[in-house]
Amino acid sequence: MKRSVFYVSDRTGITAEMLGQSLITQFESVHFDRHTLPFLETLEQVQKAIATINKAGIKDGRRPIVFSTLINEELRLEIRKADALVLDFFEIFISPLEAELGAPSSHAVGKSHGTGDINTYTERINAINFSMSHDDGVSSKGLAEADIILVGVSRSGKTPTSLYLALQFGIKAANYPLIPEDLDKQKLPEALGAYRKKLWGLSIRPERLHQIRSERRPNSSYASLANCRHEIQAAEAMMRAHGIPFLESTNMSIEELSTTILHQTGLARHLY
Amino acid sequence: MKRSVFYVSDRTGITAEMLGQSLITQFESVHFDRHTLPFLETLEQVQKAIATINKAGIKDGRRPIVFSTLINEELRLEIRKADALVLDFFEIFISPLEAELGAPSSHAVGKSHGTGDINTYTERINAINFSMSHDDGVSSKGLAEADIILVGVSRSGKTPTSLYLALQFGIKAANYPLIPEDLDKQKLPEALGAYRKKLWGLSIRPERLHQIRSERRPNSSYASLANCRHEIQAAEAMMRAHGIPFLESTNMSIEELSTTILHQTGLARHLY
Repeated sequence: MKRSVFYVSDRTGITAEMLGQSLITQFESVHFDRHTLPFLETLEQVQKAIATINKAGIKDGRRPIVFSTLINEELRLEIRKADALVLDFFEIFISPLEAELGAPSSHAVGKSHGTGDINTYTERINAINFSMSHDDGVSSKGLAEADIILVGVSRSGKTPTSLYLALQFGIKAANYPLIPEDLDKQKLPEALGAYRKKLWGLSIRPERLHQIRSERRPNSSYASLANCRHEIQAAEAMMRAHGIPFLESTNMSIEELSTTILHQTGLARHLY
Repeated sequence: MKRSVFYVSDRTGITAEMLGQSLITQFESVHFDRHTLPFLETLEQVQKAIATINKAGIKDGRRPIVFSTLINEELRLEIRKADALVLDFFEIFISPLEAELGAPSSHAVGKSHGTGDINTYTERINAINFSMSHDDGVSSKGLAEADIILVGVSRSGKTPTSLYLALQFGIKAANYPLIPEDLDKQKLPEALGAYRKKLWGLSIRPERLHQIRSERRPNSSYASLANCRHEIQAAEAMMRAHGIPFLESTNMSIEELSTTILHQTGLARHLY
């Protein structure tokens, strides 16, 4: 069964996408054909969107599903004319919130995912720059400023996790590799000695690491299963010996790794 | 007026946060005290969360607002016992979707923001690695693989935008600086010559650029307002002359820049 899904928004479309994704992934038997229609700011643009939606419905032989985060009332009334199941996010939630808060909503577009407060925004950009300039141990200067320092063997997931922590949550996340020389000596990299409490480890299953490394350097000793096994065993032994908590990243997404680390360390999330 | 807000989830909490953020930012007169309670997987954990929520309500003298994306029915029935306005995301949306699709939802936890399909996931990681290794023109090898190449003067927002495109949407986004030498000659960097159609420019207002650069190198000629004015004028002239579309990033968030670029280029978003 195929269904067309439209994420409809007056701004970026990111909220509509996330809302819709978390719902449609609950229906595994359905094949969804997903489209994002962002930046719909005028009646004419919404009418054009409706034409696109209706056309997809005719082609599918089934009406599409529309997740809308439109805020403007005129546009919201218009989108409901589509021959589709229209789930109007603001209609559903804003009324109970207005009643509860005893205040009208501003009905202003672009409040989330905007630049908002300039200081908050600068903090976020600074966190991103920090994580970029402290990726893979390139600089150990300024590690004192880090909120967290991820450690692990090459390709254990440190870089994507650090970047996500910075971008999504404004966390200054550095990462530092555990290289064979450190592992053989079972000694933490010298630069990290002063920051034991900020360290958080990532581990991974040897078979998966072997697969990832083989894509980069096929048939190398670096990528061999035996070497992956050896490195991971040594890294986990070292993290245990130094009391560094670690996660096994194999079956965890970037989002799951990042939020688990925040949850377990108690670091506060900034929201943008 | 102060209100406590809780984002409650059985997994990462990211959907609950985004849902709630986009709604509460519509109430500018209210000060919200926000908390995320992720990874609530047992009845006991939900009861502990309820205790926290109720305590905040007593302290505030007003009942809190709870945005819940819990999926398990037992946990959802439990969270509603909190002395709070509980907005149960799945209750609200899953029923109309089940009716529309004529299929039951799987009620399975962790469907969004999980690792999902391994190939899709690998694509995302590859996009992140690509953007990291093609940041700030560090490597012009492999630019042929880029989905897009952002260009602009130093500190115009290229790096955060490239990373967001990669992390959120799986886009291979490189970025390349326009440096004074190029600007003076009004010549595009040589490495970019073959990829004219992939180029997208970022510009920024001189006053804002001056402010950003001054934080990094106070009182430098690099950061001076006169130099910022000169560089931006030259960069915009060059982009116009070469037919490179560009955005003015000053009042745009990373999310707005990224989605505007996708929208205007027609590049497809991958959703994770």
